[in-house]
Amino acid sequence: MPVIEQQPQHPTPIPGLAHSTWAGSADGLQQLSVWRQTLAPGAATPPHRHPCDEVVLCVSGWGELHEDGAPPQRFGPDRTVLLPRGKLHQIFTSGPQPLELIGVFAATPVAVELPDGQAFELPWRS
Amino acid sequence: MPVIEQQPQHPTPIPGLAHSTWAGSADGLQQLSVWRQTLAPGAATPPHRHPCDEVVLCVSGWGELHEDGAPPQRFGPDRTVLLPRGKLHQIFTSGPQPLELIGVFAATPVAVELPDGQAFELPWRS
Repeated sequence: MPVIEQQPQHPTPIPGLAHSTWAGSADGLQQLSVWRQTLAPGAATPPHRHPCDEVVLCVSGWGELHEDGAPPQRFGPDRTVLLPRGKLHQIFTSGPQPLELIGVFAATPVAVELPDGQAFELPWRS
Repeated sequence: MPVIEQQPQHPTPIPGLAHSTWAGSADGLQQLSVWRQTLAPGAATPPHRHPCDEVVLCVSGWGELHEDGAPPQRFGPDRTVLLPRGKLHQIFTSGPQPLELIGVFAATPVAVELPDGQAFELPWRS
């Protein structure tokens, strides 16, 4: 069906990161994934890159983006985070609130690469 | 810069529809567009399709999706609307509140086609 329920987030093996896939290949899409994630205070994603464009929207809280070749930038619900494909990046929670995120990817499933070029196998369907 | 301001929505020539492009080709992306839209009570998008996957998220309010080959489906903030590429669809505001939307597309700029196959030139950058 074209209108689907949003599954609740679940803890992941990445410390402080909860995740739910809201849209992707398992839902009949071929080009697009949408993730809903919560990053706990003090937590961070691993540094990584994707072979597709990504956009991150902040639902609530504050985050800090570390992107290869740019100074760290803080963001909140009034900002859009642009991650053109191939850009190495890492997202930190900034401050005492959880960082509530929506991540959008121009691919499904989503491939992830670590800084050394190794593929990172995601612990969720993407 | 990788973190950008979200521009406010502006009225469009489509009755009842306000729009802001939050991310797209003008921001250095090649594969992804993110739109923020408000559809007034009683308003609807034209029926249309895209040659790319689209996902719609509801920020607030209620909408009704009419998709080719499926019964009308109501959606609110707890639902994800899946629009695989090529699917003819139309979105209506349902009820007295404005429908606040985020639309995500696996292309930038975004192409739009009307039911008769004619290209629809968008009145905003996409």
